[in-house]
Amino acid sequence: MFKVTVGKKILIANEEYAAQNQRFIAEHKKVCLNMISSPGSGKTTILARTITEMRGKIRIGVIEGDIATEIDAERIRAAGAPAIQINTEGACHLSAAQISEALKKLAIDNLDLIFIENVGNLVCPSAFELGETAKVAVLSVAEGDDKAVKYPAIFAKAKALLINKIDLLSAVGQVDFDIEKVKGDVHKMNHDIKIFAVSAKTGEGMAGWYEWLTLTMKVTTPGRTTP
Amino acid sequence: MFKVTVGKKILIANEEYAAQNQRFIAEHKKVCLNMISSPGSGKTTILARTITEMRGKIRIGVIEGDIATEIDAERIRAAGAPAIQINTEGACHLSAAQISEALKKLAIDNLDLIFIENVGNLVCPSAFELGETAKVAVLSVAEGDDKAVKYPAIFAKAKALLINKIDLLSAVGQVDFDIEKVKGDVHKMNHDIKIFAVSAKTGEGMAGWYEWLTLTMKVTTPGRTTP
Repeated sequence: MFKVTVGKKILIANEEYAAQNQRFIAEHKKVCLNMISSPGSGKTTILARTITEMRGKIRIGVIEGDIATEIDAERIRAAGAPAIQINTEGACHLSAAQISEALKKLAIDNLDLIFIENVGNLVCPSAFELGETAKVAVLSVAEGDDKAVKYPAIFAKAKALLINKIDLLSAVGQVDFDIEKVKGDVHKMNHDIKIFAVSAKTGEGMAGWYEWLTLTMKVTTPGRTTP
Repeated sequence: MFKVTVGKKILIANEEYAAQNQRFIAEHKKVCLNMISSPGSGKTTILARTITEMRGKIRIGVIEGDIATEIDAERIRAAGAPAIQINTEGACHLSAAQISEALKKLAIDNLDLIFIENVGNLVCPSAFELGETAKVAVLSVAEGDDKAVKYPAIFAKAKALLINKIDLLSAVGQVDFDIEKVKGDVHKMNHDIKIFAVSAKTGEGMAGWYEWLTLTMKVTTPGRTTP
């Protein structure tokens, strides 16, 4: 009981910061997407390709969350977008207070879309609101097609799901993963989620994701003029 | 500060149960290994193959930790070993109190080795001692070779690391993963860890892991007679 009560207090403190962030993002007419997945599902590769292929259409900035290292922020900068690296020093998720600080450091006036790449963890980040416009889940086919039912929280909350690394399914058939089963499992918990089967490595299937991003930008910030 | 203090209290309460579990396991001359990894790195497949291939040599039982579902316990039972499923209902790691309950349910007099398959999470489970003899980390090559430096805690604490899914590296070269880089990164934090590159799917490399298991059984419970 002790743990549950305390957990609630931490969540309430976090939600106050999250509400502030949400107001800040809305007032500045920006869109902010919180990407959540296991470690190694390919979040950074998806972001790097999206930054490259959306150049001239959507101005993207990234807040990177990791336990340690600046590896991901460096990959994002190499792809041509500004990135702020947060090191949680052991914590298993980003907090809204950390995002509040990072948003101040990112020159958001020059951006349309801010991605938050959360700490690689399919569990904890889904419980902590950051003030984002929407959550986006990523699942690699190498992780197995039972993950949506085993770790339901993020799949129930996300507005979009990228099933990544479909290049591993192809001709060789090395990975057993039933995309239709996962789509069915996820739609049972979440009617409105959009699901894209992609390979961020080869680019296959990414066009649908870019269309969704473009539509989400239009719907969320109707007054915005593209660069 | 609030969060840190509270976190410490939870960890101390957990450590009391962990110490009890450790005494219980030692008194019964059993070995208990706590397996920790991201979701989908192949823990259950490693266990199922180990159970099958060690039959008649080591009597294995498994405590399965998942947010939801009984899928993993059913896979273990199908491989021929007793399994107790714990559903954490959202919690991101197993607690020592849960293990204490599960140990009572498992008929451990008929077992030599108890595996705990922790919730798929490369972060939180490494902070919660369960009373295990040792921690074992698993990393799939599909997760990328930067994971040891980005999520160092479990790699610094484990006695063994299985680098799994090496079948994905082979002829096709579809996955970029430098095994020697990871070995170097991990050995920098953890001199004594044993590292095995394996495919639990094809069986490649598993012999080294079985040798390590057999040696660990001998060293930890020298008076034990094999079945």
